[in-house]
Amino acid sequence: MCRWLAYSGSPVRLEELLYKPANSLVMQSKHARMGVETTNGDGFGVGWYGSEPYPGLFHSTEPAWHDRNLRELSAQASAGRVFAHIRASTGSAVQQTNCHPFRHGRWLWMHNGLLKDFPAVKRDLAIAVEPSLFPQIEGATDSELFFFLALTFGLEKDPPSAVAAAVGLIEDVGRRHGIEHPIQMTVATTDGDTTWAFRYSSEGRSRSLFHSTDVSTLRTQYPDNPMLHALADDARLVVSEPLGDLVGAWREVPESTCVVVHGGGEDLLPFSPAAA
Amino acid sequence: MCRWLAYSGSPVRLEELLYKPANSLVMQSKHARMGVETTNGDGFGVGWYGSEPYPGLFHSTEPAWHDRNLRELSAQASAGRVFAHIRASTGSAVQQTNCHPFRHGRWLWMHNGLLKDFPAVKRDLAIAVEPSLFPQIEGATDSELFFFLALTFGLEKDPPSAVAAAVGLIEDVGRRHGIEHPIQMTVATTDGDTTWAFRYSSEGRSRSLFHSTDVSTLRTQYPDNPMLHALADDARLVVSEPLGDLVGAWREVPESTCVVVHGGGEDLLPFSPAAA
Amino acid sequence: MCRWLAYSGSPVRLEELLYKPANSLVMQSKHARMGVETTNGDGFGVGWYGSEPYPGLFHSTEPAWHDRNLRELSAQASAGRVFAHIRASTGSAVQQTNCHPFRHGRWLWMHNGLLKDFPAVKRDLAIAVEPSLFPQIEGATDSELFFFLALTFGLEKDPPSAVAAAVGLIEDVGRRHGIEHPIQMTVATTDGDTTWAFRYSSEGRSRSLFHSTDVSTLRTQYPDNPMLHALADDARLVVSEPLGDLVGAWREVPESTCVVVHGGGEDLLPFSPAAA
Amino acid sequence: MCRWLAYSGSPVRLEELLYKPANSLVMQSKHARMGVETTNGDGFGVGWYGSEPYPGLFHSTEPAWHDRNLRELSAQASAGRVFAHIRASTGSAVQQTNCHPFRHGRWLWMHNGLLKDFPAVKRDLAIAVEPSLFPQIEGATDSELFFFLALTFGLEKDPPSAVAAAVGLIEDVGRRHGIEHPIQMTVATTDGDTTWAFRYSSEGRSRSLFHSTDVSTLRTQYPDNPMLHALADDARLVVSEPLGDLVGAWREVPESTCVVVHGGGEDLLPFSPAAA
Repeated sequence: MCRWLAYSGSPVRLEELLYKPANSLVMQSKHARMGVETTNGDGFGVGWYGSEPYPGLFHSTEPAWHDRNLRELSAQASAGRVFAHIRASTGSAVQQTNCHPFRHGRWLWMHNGLLKDFPAVKRDLAIAVEPSLFPQIEGATDSELFFFLALTFGLEKDPPSAVAAAVGLIEDVGRRHGIEHPIQMTVATTDGDTTWAFRYSSEGRSRSLFHSTDVSTLRTQYPDNPMLHALADDARLVVSEPLGDLVGAWREVPESTCVVVHGGGEDLLPFSPAAA
Repeated sequence: MCRWLAYSGSPVRLEELLYKPANSLVMQSKHARMGVETTNGDGFGVGWYGSEPYPGLFHSTEPAWHDRNLRELSAQASAGRVFAHIRASTGSAVQQTNCHPFRHGRWLWMHNGLLKDFPAVKRDLAIAVEPSLFPQIEGATDSELFFFLALTFGLEKDPPSAVAAAVGLIEDVGRRHGIEHPIQMTVATTDGDTTWAFRYSSEGRSRSLFHSTDVSTLRTQYPDNPMLHALADDARLVVSEPLGDLVGAWREVPESTCVVVHGGGEDLLPFSPAAA
Repeated sequence: MCRWLAYSGSPVRLEELLYKPANSLVMQSKHARMGVETTNGDGFGVGWYGSEPYPGLFHSTEPAWHDRNLRELSAQASAGRVFAHIRASTGSAVQQTNCHPFRHGRWLWMHNGLLKDFPAVKRDLAIAVEPSLFPQIEGATDSELFFFLALTFGLEKDPPSAVAAAVGLIEDVGRRHGIEHPIQMTVATTDGDTTWAFRYSSEGRSRSLFHSTDVSTLRTQYPDNPMLHALADDARLVVSEPLGDLVGAWREVPESTCVVVHGGGEDLLPFSPAAA
Repeated sequence: MCRWLAYSGSPVRLEELLYKPANSLVMQSKHARMGVETTNGDGFGVGWYGSEPYPGLFHSTEPAWHDRNLRELSAQASAGRVFAHIRASTGSAVQQTNCHPFRHGRWLWMHNGLLKDFPAVKRDLAIAVEPSLFPQIEGATDSELFFFLALTFGLEKDPPSAVAAAVGLIEDVGRRHGIEHPIQMTVATTDGDTTWAFRYSSEGRSRSLFHSTDVSTLRTQYPDNPMLHALADDARLVVSEPLGDLVGAWREVPESTCVVVHGGGEDLLPFSPAAA
């Protein structure tokens, strides 16, 4: 469906994250290795926390592989928190308002996966969104509506609980509509400081998700790797698929897990939906 | 806000309608004379009934004045029913799913005007849409939601009553949210056979609307006018503003009126919202 | 690089050619089977001869697989001559003026392949273009410049000779710049009546090219195939790769060959570059 | 035709330059006051020198007034040298490669005006471009070709002389083709340090051009003006038209003049074309 990347650490030029790795996200836009689709050419988005209090967003409907503005921005902008997402539409229109990451205040959100049989559940889920938030929904994707449900359930206060409640509702509504496996997801969200990433699916066979291992250790192992020298010791990546073939650089995130990345370290917590 | 044109009559090349007149719709995209904005450069759309049972749609986010594909299509396609619309966004995103005309089955719909303070009323109105229609809403405009309300109230069976009921609901919901003048509209809708056009606003000062007078009479008056020779006797236009300065060619549609164009003639009926 | 399709025959809806076949051109935009690239997502173009004397052109920078306007146009437009092309850029910008087919008067031209080391030869070739044609070059591709060279050498009078002269010049200029194999090409051109398609490369290993066999024979063989019933007896296709797996439906065009399609039949002529 | 802005000074957020002023460049994209056209909606571009050695470029074919990515970038990026340009096409295609500013190495270039009867002179001028530079021309505008002529004549070494030589050639070629007034121009170019701006036309009635006066003096005059507080003492602007109505803030650049902005000060030099 899609592929994404979440970076936390010392400020780094976007180019180092999006273009330089052997299996970079831009490369994955044409030749993803582990995705349901090899082509993720239905637009993309980047959210980055630079020197301003609010993150910037760049959304484009072009395939990432040939977008010149993405290349320019990536060569100029540095940031300590970066979310990037390439899209393979599951049916909704290719338009900027359907591009991830989505933003609300200081928060970003991006999703790989889908809400199964979305047309059947869309209205029930939309009605569950906090009324004051409802008119802020700009696009037509399941992913954005999922974000607004998480916001409704308190994402800005307690992300794991809010996501658990949103997933619980989605599964409940889905099953009431006869959908066996209502949700498939890897999700990342951040307030620009901590990042939370989730891997879960109703059927227990979720889309792939990996987190990077300690950069300083890797640098000792691979003293000649230029990519590792561009990254600081506190650099942490959570990605849909590894950005390269370096043995030991990536660990798969287990099923039904929430990865919390904060201050150069990460914790893995069990994740399960909350009863609606 | 926007400008539109609805043509009924014998098949004519789109070019004759969209480019050839002195104050053509494409010309109005840059220099509208009677609009709230002189520039209507936030995308456009054309719907046409050619030889197929369903109308075709061409939606673009580019300004009409420089869109080469519109010029090409207009030179090639002929149709007996044509809806065309140029957009000046009142805030929602410039994307194809926000371009008019909107389509449902054989029906087209386009709107100039706005639902006042749309974010305040959007949720209440969205919930009023027939649940089976709700997931078919693709964009984020007030105009498309208005279309789905009209469909909910039976547009396909009795357009004037359905529009009256939709407007009644919009005014009722608006007033409950403290909005003095909830709606401003000129609207056109068609099933590919009959066309209904409405001019109405809560405040009684509606956007401009005109309908063409009899072509054969005009042709006698202006034997040298090439535009009139490209049009058949049964040609009827309803437009946001006259396409030229020909004296006698255009009549203003009165406030609170529904124009019904059918079989080369038109009827003007009084229009008022129905109580919700 | 790219994939293309050239249709000649009784008028057919574009949809039958572009969407319906199992391995349709739109399908090939994401999953080409025989191309150098599996993804041909850097824009596309369609040229069609409808009821007007000049062909229409629809050029888009979006991937064909998600372009809604292409789907709409294809459902509405019928034509007896159709050129369609999906692009995988070899470096030049993704913009409408770089989309094939290119047009000059009644003529269309499209190309799969490349002029090797184009920057090295571009200026010499540009200077060779007839001065009155030079300012009509709108884009930046090798393919469009190749078209203008063919026009310079008399394409409108004798297409095989003009293409042979253009290729001869390209090889001559290329070799003077030390390029071993200056050209790789399958090309199609038409005046809206006859179609000429060429398969050639300096190295003698050209991109794939196929032409369809007789539809009436196929229809006897496959009485249940719906695709064959949508096509008339005079339907002829020349394509970069077969549109389906029907045994006997496609024949490979040999190396160094020009296929001339006219009046429901085709001739295969040997093709070789002319000395510059 | 177009409108542009060149900023030199301490780093400032792009937003302060492009959105905040009363008659900002983004405002001028819809409602220019002094341009030949009030609408400059045929794309735009921004070049900025941030913390990297080479300038970044953002080119878009959308009207500046509704481009969300421009707003995002402007809120995030700060730079000490900024070139911004909004386009009103005089005929060439609306595509990113036709958007100003154009870039070569560290150099940027932008132009308002036109080369009269460009198709007539294009080939002669293109052949005059240094052969090694020729294949780097990406678009189809007179403005980009003018840039490449200036580069050919030594822009990187002595900008006023190079521009004088390029204009001399353009006038010479134009007059040989019977064009009375071959060029109309305001041009700005920079190496990221010094900025050179030119106002000239063959007919002696050039497009408008203004430069800002000393900010510290203005700040004393207008202690309550927030715009002036966002700008440092060394801020210098050269613009197609004043960004506001502050009396004393803007001085018209005289006809046939080159403004050199360097180190917080500017010099005005007479400019005249060099004999070809």
